[in-house]
Amino acid sequence: MKQRLKVNDYVEGIRQGNRVVLAKALTLIESDLAADRVTAGKVLSRLKPVVKDIIRIGITGAPGVGKSSFIESFGNFLTQRNKKIAVLTVDPTSQLSKGSILGDKTRMEQLSKNSQAFIRPSPSGGALGGTTLRTRESILLCEAAGYDVILVETVGVGQSEVAVKGMVDFFLLLILAGAGDALQGIKRGIMEMADALVITKDDGDNKKKSRDAQAEYQHALQLFRTDESGWKPPVLTCSALEHTGMEEIWEMILTYKEKTSKNKFWQVNRKKQAVNWFHDYISQGLMAEIYRSPRLGKLIKKLEKEVISKKQLPALAGEKLLASFKKMLSSK
Amino acid sequence: MKQRLKVNDYVEGIRQGNRVVLAKALTLIESDLAADRVTAGKVLSRLKPVVKDIIRIGITGAPGVGKSSFIESFGNFLTQRNKKIAVLTVDPTSQLSKGSILGDKTRMEQLSKNSQAFIRPSPSGGALGGTTLRTRESILLCEAAGYDVILVETVGVGQSEVAVKGMVDFFLLLILAGAGDALQGIKRGIMEMADALVITKDDGDNKKKSRDAQAEYQHALQLFRTDESGWKPPVLTCSALEHTGMEEIWEMILTYKEKTSKNKFWQVNRKKQAVNWFHDYISQGLMAEIYRSPRLGKLIKKLEKEVISKKQLPALAGEKLLASFKKMLSSK
Repeated sequence: MKQRLKVNDYVEGIRQGNRVVLAKALTLIESDLAADRVTAGKVLSRLKPVVKDIIRIGITGAPGVGKSSFIESFGNFLTQRNKKIAVLTVDPTSQLSKGSILGDKTRMEQLSKNSQAFIRPSPSGGALGGTTLRTRESILLCEAAGYDVILVETVGVGQSEVAVKGMVDFFLLLILAGAGDALQGIKRGIMEMADALVITKDDGDNKKKSRDAQAEYQHALQLFRTDESGWKPPVLTCSALEHTGMEEIWEMILTYKEKTSKNKFWQVNRKKQAVNWFHDYISQGLMAEIYRSPRLGKLIKKLEKEVISKKQLPALAGEKLLASFKKMLSSK
Repeated sequence: MKQRLKVNDYVEGIRQGNRVVLAKALTLIESDLAADRVTAGKVLSRLKPVVKDIIRIGITGAPGVGKSSFIESFGNFLTQRNKKIAVLTVDPTSQLSKGSILGDKTRMEQLSKNSQAFIRPSPSGGALGGTTLRTRESILLCEAAGYDVILVETVGVGQSEVAVKGMVDFFLLLILAGAGDALQGIKRGIMEMADALVITKDDGDNKKKSRDAQAEYQHALQLFRTDESGWKPPVLTCSALEHTGMEEIWEMILTYKEKTSKNKFWQVNRKKQAVNWFHDYISQGLMAEIYRSPRLGKLIKKLEKEVISKKQLPALAGEKLLASFKKMLSSK
């Protein structure tokens, strides 16, 4: 085990916004060691609820769209507006590639030197379910440490978008104009999750293409039904190179917050997210407990063998274990 | 409830390869009604294990890459080789869009008229977890009905690739040459999951671009470590328009089967998949049982309220429920 602090040192350090302690606390949160989980639980339970307004923004987009450059430019803009920002990453692909393509701080060279910004490289390894739980805890730590805008970046492949959508207030989809086959290339499921589309690299020779794409996407978005938030996702453009469009994006997010706070969607959404987090936590814990239980642990291992030797269909073996489980619950 | 058959009629119909009964059985499998789940369980338990060799192939690729055209061309090629093929789709985006963009049989006009092919539109609605469980059961039904190649298509966004990878023997990634920014646009996590890359639309003016892309991707793939299967994913090209490349793709898949059967990876992989299916089944069922349990059901609802009113952090509320659960297990 790497050097750990005492619970109190974590809590105090975080309260004071100490970056080194925050980084160590995030490492603690990401650890799978049982002792670390216990300490992490104690630290979490001692963090006071944050009263000030915090905005959690999810950012996704295909590789090559310029996510890092966008975050660097947008992040620096926000710090100029006196916001303290934290950047977290959810990257399930690092499970396969053993080490993240997004984890590199040098991707955001300027922002990483900015004292009002905190960038956390993506933890590598672990299943998405676990990663998601840890990222939610990491968000809380950053908020307790005084950051008021949390940017959660996803690698834009696999399962990460859905996970991130479930932990943020606003979900931003970055798009590159004229990359491949325009509307053909829309990721439909992702697009419907987005609260706004932002066309990146709206600079130099790309300007014409960006405007065209903006009109095209805006048109396409009209085909979707209005979300329960009552919000119609707009399409904006920006250039990280020329630092344009950042103010408009921020103003839009503030408008979203104002409107959805008024109709209560913002608050309802946060509550739903908290309940989902609770459910995910339980669901992962239950399986672990089943294995540890003397009776069910034995049964599950026996059924596994039968599934492997094709004596049982997986679904039917599952039914059997659930039946046993039900009996235990009902006898109580 | 729509018209249902008796268990025996489903079982006999499937055994005889009756397409109408198979379609009805798949509808039964996809149903969430409790009565249907019971019938589905009975039907599943009465299906005899299939002895003949079956190959399950997963197919993914970004929208616009030509998945439907590929499946139509590849499917027709396989039926000419005396294979009966079934096409299933996993499309979690239909959860949001209420109705699938992939579900339309008319996408594969020729194949849908082919008596040796069975195309199942994607069921709409339901969470990915549930969809995944049902698709696995659907595969079994199709196999019991005599289909020997199962093509499982994914919409290529969100979480579906990982789910499909977990239920097939071979995972094919379709790529369009020169779409956007070549290697920049590689979905790294997805690429590492693929057992082969196939560049589509290798015809007419695209031929030069396709060859270039083939060389480029082949080079990129060399950077990855060899899979535990011992297989090095190749990069092939094809044209659904000119019906070229299909034989090479099929031969490659047969080679994969031969090699990995020899080193036992094929068999081990299938066993692992069966165990994962079993676990997923239990994990979803457990949560449902917790809610139904008098004691834990009450506790979980109380904790939910506390999470919503911010009296409890989700993770800590989760710990409390798990603690109660543990106590019940250990007292037995």
